[in-house]
Amino acid sequence: MAYWNVDKVPYVGTSNLKSGLGFHYYQPDKMVGGKKMRDWLRFAVAYWHTFDQRLVDPFGDGTAQRPYDKFTDPMDLALAKVDAAFEFYDKLGVDFLCFHDRDLAPEGNTLRETNANLDKVVDKIVEYQKTSGMKVLWNTSNLFSNPRFVEGAATAPYADIFAYSAAQLKHSLEIGKRVGSENYVFWGGREGYESLWNTNMKEEQEHAAKFFHMAKDYANEIGFDAQMLLEPKPKEPTTHQYDTDAATTIAFMKEYGLEDDFKLNLEGNHANLAGHTYQHEIKTAVDAGLLGSLDANQGDKLIGWDIDEYPSDLYETTAAMYEVILNGGIGPHGGLNFDSKPRRSSFEPNDLFYGHIVGMDSFAAGLLVAQRMYEDKVLEDLKDNRYASYKSGIGADIESGKADFKSLEAYAIDKPQSELIAATHSDHLEQIKDTINHYIVDTLGK
Amino acid sequence: MAYWNVDKVPYVGTSNLKSGLGFHYYQPDKMVGGKKMRDWLRFAVAYWHTFDQRLVDPFGDGTAQRPYDKFTDPMDLALAKVDAAFEFYDKLGVDFLCFHDRDLAPEGNTLRETNANLDKVVDKIVEYQKTSGMKVLWNTSNLFSNPRFVEGAATAPYADIFAYSAAQLKHSLEIGKRVGSENYVFWGGREGYESLWNTNMKEEQEHAAKFFHMAKDYANEIGFDAQMLLEPKPKEPTTHQYDTDAATTIAFMKEYGLEDDFKLNLEGNHANLAGHTYQHEIKTAVDAGLLGSLDANQGDKLIGWDIDEYPSDLYETTAAMYEVILNGGIGPHGGLNFDSKPRRSSFEPNDLFYGHIVGMDSFAAGLLVAQRMYEDKVLEDLKDNRYASYKSGIGADIESGKADFKSLEAYAIDKPQSELIAATHSDHLEQIKDTINHYIVDTLGK
Amino acid sequence: MAYWNVDKVPYVGTSNLKSGLGFHYYQPDKMVGGKKMRDWLRFAVAYWHTFDQRLVDPFGDGTAQRPYDKFTDPMDLALAKVDAAFEFYDKLGVDFLCFHDRDLAPEGNTLRETNANLDKVVDKIVEYQKTSGMKVLWNTSNLFSNPRFVEGAATAPYADIFAYSAAQLKHSLEIGKRVGSENYVFWGGREGYESLWNTNMKEEQEHAAKFFHMAKDYANEIGFDAQMLLEPKPKEPTTHQYDTDAATTIAFMKEYGLEDDFKLNLEGNHANLAGHTYQHEIKTAVDAGLLGSLDANQGDKLIGWDIDEYPSDLYETTAAMYEVILNGGIGPHGGLNFDSKPRRSSFEPNDLFYGHIVGMDSFAAGLLVAQRMYEDKVLEDLKDNRYASYKSGIGADIESGKADFKSLEAYAIDKPQSELIAATHSDHLEQIKDTINHYIVDTLGK
Amino acid sequence: MAYWNVDKVPYVGTSNLKSGLGFHYYQPDKMVGGKKMRDWLRFAVAYWHTFDQRLVDPFGDGTAQRPYDKFTDPMDLALAKVDAAFEFYDKLGVDFLCFHDRDLAPEGNTLRETNANLDKVVDKIVEYQKTSGMKVLWNTSNLFSNPRFVEGAATAPYADIFAYSAAQLKHSLEIGKRVGSENYVFWGGREGYESLWNTNMKEEQEHAAKFFHMAKDYANEIGFDAQMLLEPKPKEPTTHQYDTDAATTIAFMKEYGLEDDFKLNLEGNHANLAGHTYQHEIKTAVDAGLLGSLDANQGDKLIGWDIDEYPSDLYETTAAMYEVILNGGIGPHGGLNFDSKPRRSSFEPNDLFYGHIVGMDSFAAGLLVAQRMYEDKVLEDLKDNRYASYKSGIGADIESGKADFKSLEAYAIDKPQSELIAATHSDHLEQIKDTINHYIVDTLGK
Repeated sequence: MAYWNVDKVPYVGTSNLKSGLGFHYYQPDKMVGGKKMRDWLRFAVAYWHTFDQRLVDPFGDGTAQRPYDKFTDPMDLALAKVDAAFEFYDKLGVDFLCFHDRDLAPEGNTLRETNANLDKVVDKIVEYQKTSGMKVLWNTSNLFSNPRFVEGAATAPYADIFAYSAAQLKHSLEIGKRVGSENYVFWGGREGYESLWNTNMKEEQEHAAKFFHMAKDYANEIGFDAQMLLEPKPKEPTTHQYDTDAATTIAFMKEYGLEDDFKLNLEGNHANLAGHTYQHEIKTAVDAGLLGSLDANQGDKLIGWDIDEYPSDLYETTAAMYEVILNGGIGPHGGLNFDSKPRRSSFEPNDLFYGHIVGMDSFAAGLLVAQRMYEDKVLEDLKDNRYASYKSGIGADIESGKADFKSLEAYAIDKPQSELIAATHSDHLEQIKDTINHYIVDTLGK
Repeated sequence: MAYWNVDKVPYVGTSNLKSGLGFHYYQPDKMVGGKKMRDWLRFAVAYWHTFDQRLVDPFGDGTAQRPYDKFTDPMDLALAKVDAAFEFYDKLGVDFLCFHDRDLAPEGNTLRETNANLDKVVDKIVEYQKTSGMKVLWNTSNLFSNPRFVEGAATAPYADIFAYSAAQLKHSLEIGKRVGSENYVFWGGREGYESLWNTNMKEEQEHAAKFFHMAKDYANEIGFDAQMLLEPKPKEPTTHQYDTDAATTIAFMKEYGLEDDFKLNLEGNHANLAGHTYQHEIKTAVDAGLLGSLDANQGDKLIGWDIDEYPSDLYETTAAMYEVILNGGIGPHGGLNFDSKPRRSSFEPNDLFYGHIVGMDSFAAGLLVAQRMYEDKVLEDLKDNRYASYKSGIGADIESGKADFKSLEAYAIDKPQSELIAATHSDHLEQIKDTINHYIVDTLGK
Repeated sequence: MAYWNVDKVPYVGTSNLKSGLGFHYYQPDKMVGGKKMRDWLRFAVAYWHTFDQRLVDPFGDGTAQRPYDKFTDPMDLALAKVDAAFEFYDKLGVDFLCFHDRDLAPEGNTLRETNANLDKVVDKIVEYQKTSGMKVLWNTSNLFSNPRFVEGAATAPYADIFAYSAAQLKHSLEIGKRVGSENYVFWGGREGYESLWNTNMKEEQEHAAKFFHMAKDYANEIGFDAQMLLEPKPKEPTTHQYDTDAATTIAFMKEYGLEDDFKLNLEGNHANLAGHTYQHEIKTAVDAGLLGSLDANQGDKLIGWDIDEYPSDLYETTAAMYEVILNGGIGPHGGLNFDSKPRRSSFEPNDLFYGHIVGMDSFAAGLLVAQRMYEDKVLEDLKDNRYASYKSGIGADIESGKADFKSLEAYAIDKPQSELIAATHSDHLEQIKDTINHYIVDTLGK
Repeated sequence: MAYWNVDKVPYVGTSNLKSGLGFHYYQPDKMVGGKKMRDWLRFAVAYWHTFDQRLVDPFGDGTAQRPYDKFTDPMDLALAKVDAAFEFYDKLGVDFLCFHDRDLAPEGNTLRETNANLDKVVDKIVEYQKTSGMKVLWNTSNLFSNPRFVEGAATAPYADIFAYSAAQLKHSLEIGKRVGSENYVFWGGREGYESLWNTNMKEEQEHAAKFFHMAKDYANEIGFDAQMLLEPKPKEPTTHQYDTDAATTIAFMKEYGLEDDFKLNLEGNHANLAGHTYQHEIKTAVDAGLLGSLDANQGDKLIGWDIDEYPSDLYETTAAMYEVILNGGIGPHGGLNFDSKPRRSSFEPNDLFYGHIVGMDSFAAGLLVAQRMYEDKVLEDLKDNRYASYKSGIGADIESGKADFKSLEAYAIDKPQSELIAATHSDHLEQIKDTINHYIVDTLGK
């Protein structure tokens, strides 16, 4: 039975300007810089936004129209969604999926009952994997929606909630092993505070660290060797979230000895909410050797909350893929997960395809543009040149540790101001922006 | 004598990807939609940012390197800058300039002395206009930099400052007439408040209105028929500026009977600081019939102050030009004034060319893309279709005024929810964004 | 039967520092500036946040624990809530309530069925009013939550939705008449756009204006003489909302001839989201003679979405009440409606009391402080002095219209810079802030 | 000769509500929690904002009127300012000053000449210290204003600039030793990037770390044992500054082995620009054992740039001092430096006194309120109670490391949802806010 009233989405090239059910740029087997597009991008569909999201907002009920809306029994619905999901993956042409435990099946009154519900759905997913070859980029555990997590999960002030969170996550790790997840993600939606007046911040962070260590220990114990990932976000739903941004989360990992076992899962919209560009967050992770995986979405920088739009801004996808190329890829296990949802006014089933198509095409386009800029060395030459003074003379002395304040004073103390100014050079930022425009339109518009 | 070590900037087409001293898209005499590019765009160079701006910021001194830096006498410098400016206009290939009174010449101790200084420089500008054909898009008066305007000019709590502002502006109108300005702009940098606790907001707004009426009266008296324009900005330098955004400024104009004589000069960076897109501000003005002229610049939406970057974002220039095309042009007297400056780190003389080139090319590109979308009716058809229900039946009754709450209740009271939902349609926003991407790269990349 | 396990909240004075179930400042019958506190403040409890809100957020399910949670049948629940509500009003000691139509009763499949459900609940409210003396500050219609309003109600692109909205609101006006609402509020949660690319902004605004006129016409027809109010908010849930802020909404009202019949209902959190202080929004409305009523809540200025906290910031309540005092009161029909909700982590029933107590006490405190500052003329004298130069000489000529640019030039042209600077005076803002601190602690701390 | 036309600022108590030249709360020798106010607060006056700042902004020239404006020779002016400064310290009644090297004396053409200028002024400061007992809370080097630092100092792409920065700072350390600075601060105004496209972020951060190590090495060499401090700020003047916030800067310090020798100097306005409360930044530093010193200022959260207002918000000063009290003090060497300036419209000399008075009184008031809340254990009891479940049972097992995912699963797997919900408790945030209001007004208003 077909849930989605569309054919498999073909590559159609760039002849038709109006967007439709075809890719303009994404060709999975096209070679780019010695690697297939699909291997650069490793797109994953997010279960929660694509199959569960009803398109609610704080002021409105769900508008989503989905082909499985007729199912009323929660388990029937859960199982039907698996069929719909795998049909969707196949028609869209992606290789990966991602999910939270609670995306898949309804809760029972106890965790034991909940796990039983969940296992039934996972059984079906495992069957589908055998025939479809679909892989799981990552799975995760929803430790934020249920009222029991109202003041945190691993950072809850309540030991029972910590215990429950551990128990819930334990099963999620077991599921990760069954479905062969390449990564396991932790997003701490409630791991933060509403007010500092009633919060032991350090104690809460120590609890989180304990929790992560226990999780890794258990994963090791059962032989689940997925890459563990933390996902930063500065605020929302909490007033302050501990995993604020890449730099803060890296610091936390190092403080608590997690950096060998954990890396980062980054997201564009979260970057913006923290006041950063997505490019900044990616480079921060790359520089620390801790880039794990990426979410494919974008924010609206004039909007102060998380909107998880499908990526369409070619400047942002180009910048993200450029940093990925410098890193030699997202990472051994990373991919691009569509943590994206349609706007509430895009409520028809096909909008899920349109959204993924603009997102996949925008990242494929970004890859093409970035690879060409990389090959032309247009920016790398510029940077080599810009920092060249550290390659010899006083600069080399600084690098080698030979220089100290006294030798540097001797070097500089009689230099006139004009000579110092002459040592600096315009960085011609306006020209760089123009060049990027040219690369985008020339690479994609042919 | 050549101030600028560049040749006249040629059109070079799109073959060279690296930005340089040539236009990729801007061809002044190219016909687009029945009109020359130069007539759609009417680019103007802003005297203050281009010739006066030293590239200071609140934490640093000026870095600008300019070819007239050797002049130390203020009047010598002022006169040399006119030579440099007209050479710049010629080499860049623009038709218009814009200036504040105080951009041109130094102040004396009294207004009489200041006016004398200014007149000498204007004499030289008028001479250059005769030979070059350069026109003035608009002039304006700087009523915000000098300490006397610390608490306002027209809205100062001090009658002497109001009087001085009037006197200063009077001469600026006379200069406008001499140079043939097509518009006259008022930006009220100090017309707002620091704190409401010590401010008679309404009285201050009434003073501003009086001031504008007096200005128009005097312009009429001397036969200076430029279009008067107000320029909105929400804050900075003041905590709150009265001309907050387009809607607020239109309201002010209507409240005080200024809407027949005044229109709006809008700016992208100011739009963002008010929480709006530039497209929104332009459409707001167009809908009110009050679009006067546009500033060509852009903000960085992650930055909370005015940065006046040269425009380079093709999404923004496309959106701006699309609204302009729907309006049949910017307006009879409007143009695109580069209220843009280099970043402080782009301090060489040529950066002024690079900046204008990316800006002019980005707007020329936006025009080409927008015109093609307009001709293909890709969005206009979509909108006609979206609102079609108002063309007949109950929708036509609503439009004509035939319907009232009772007739509409009779129409709706027994409609089941399913029928109401069926009356709504997905607006496929993701598809629209993808289509715009296609138009940009296809139009420009060929 | 008692739903709320608390006694009537008494005035306890300021002896106990720990907040509890007693008022420190609010004494309804205390005279302040010749008027009772209750008549200055006219507090109203908001049905939606107090009785319906489950404390959900975009990432979590409802945490609220409410004494009527045992009711499962929607109509039983709706009727039980009325009992709980009137017990709450009585125990809290407020005189007014506010509600949306959909707060009170569940929808049926058609409007006719929905109206029938609603009428049953309203019958019960009317009965309670007779015995309790409770008045309705305002009622309103929820034209934003249901999926049919996904793209607008009065501004929907779909005539059927306009018709349904009119029909729904018609009944809401009839209910307003039955319960004796003093005001009727319109908050246009969906009256805006997601994207300008597919929106006829002007046509939508014209539809809104038609809708408001029809509503007023029908209210007149049935003799419902409540003050009509529009409530501004800049964005959320829509990307752009037409009633952006006070100035924009006033402009809209004047553009479409609504200003004689409509005023403004303002809110602190909405003010902040538009980049304004609450004080600014109130003064803007006062200056236009269009202040209708106020919402009592506050935002967190470091948070980019609407959180509707109970007001507790004494600076903000003092500023709001100061503007109210200058206006002689909120207005003939206005009051302070608690559009406020507990944080999701304040989920117990008593938190509803704690929240209202901090809110009512904070506004009562603000009233006391503001009245004392007003009586001492500490700010009014300062302003009179600041603008004194417009009372005589050249200032009086400006005010009377005798001055023009020529006479002002004659006055100013030979004034030296030093004389101009001497005409300005420091406004000592730091001293003003210190003085306000002193008034707050001295007035409240005795 | 008296520069300032005021007497020594006395303690006047709270009888006069209008702010004037007297303290309402600050009594240096008053004992609070076993320590003198002056020793808790250790106020310092900032040379740059108080004596150098001309009250410019990006749109306006300086408005400041200062008693030494008559001096035109730069060295005469520099020396006169020292007299004015020490008279100011004495009249205000503070014990500390802070300065940048370039605040004190003009630059020459070479560093050697600049150092000579500087030494003359420092000689005079040292003399004044002997007679006045004034101490230097910290000194620092201005490595951001001069054009040579346009693209960074320690992180400049140019080795000559690194060398010059080192040489300049070397002398600043020597001066620190001469004047007995208790701390030495690094604020990296240009240590960040304008664009990632041309930046080697990691290389630049490594250069910064080298620079800090060299600085500490040299300080050790000369026996200058001041506490080294880094000051975070997220952006402005650069688009991104590496020392973004407390967490990021701590991470940097740990990454590069600086945490034993460096601590943090924090600022309220910078905290807000990074999206945090000041309280958050202070607690973050305290939890890491890295709180060094504090700046006394505040931002306007509706404004997107650094305004450095004098602190007046009693909520913020109370929160800051509460974290300080929990920490047992700001730290062994820390104090409160007034990195604050008057608004441009507060341009008279006395506004410098008014500003410091509101700031000192607001922090003194915050100390009094915080100490009383601390003594009453109103919040500490609440927190002890909130986290009590970690003291025994399963919570104690989690803390001790005895628990693992398997034991926690066994504990939690059969708990019904109701039991989990019962393990959580409302945190009554609204009540906490009300309690804080009561503490503020009751403590201060008596």
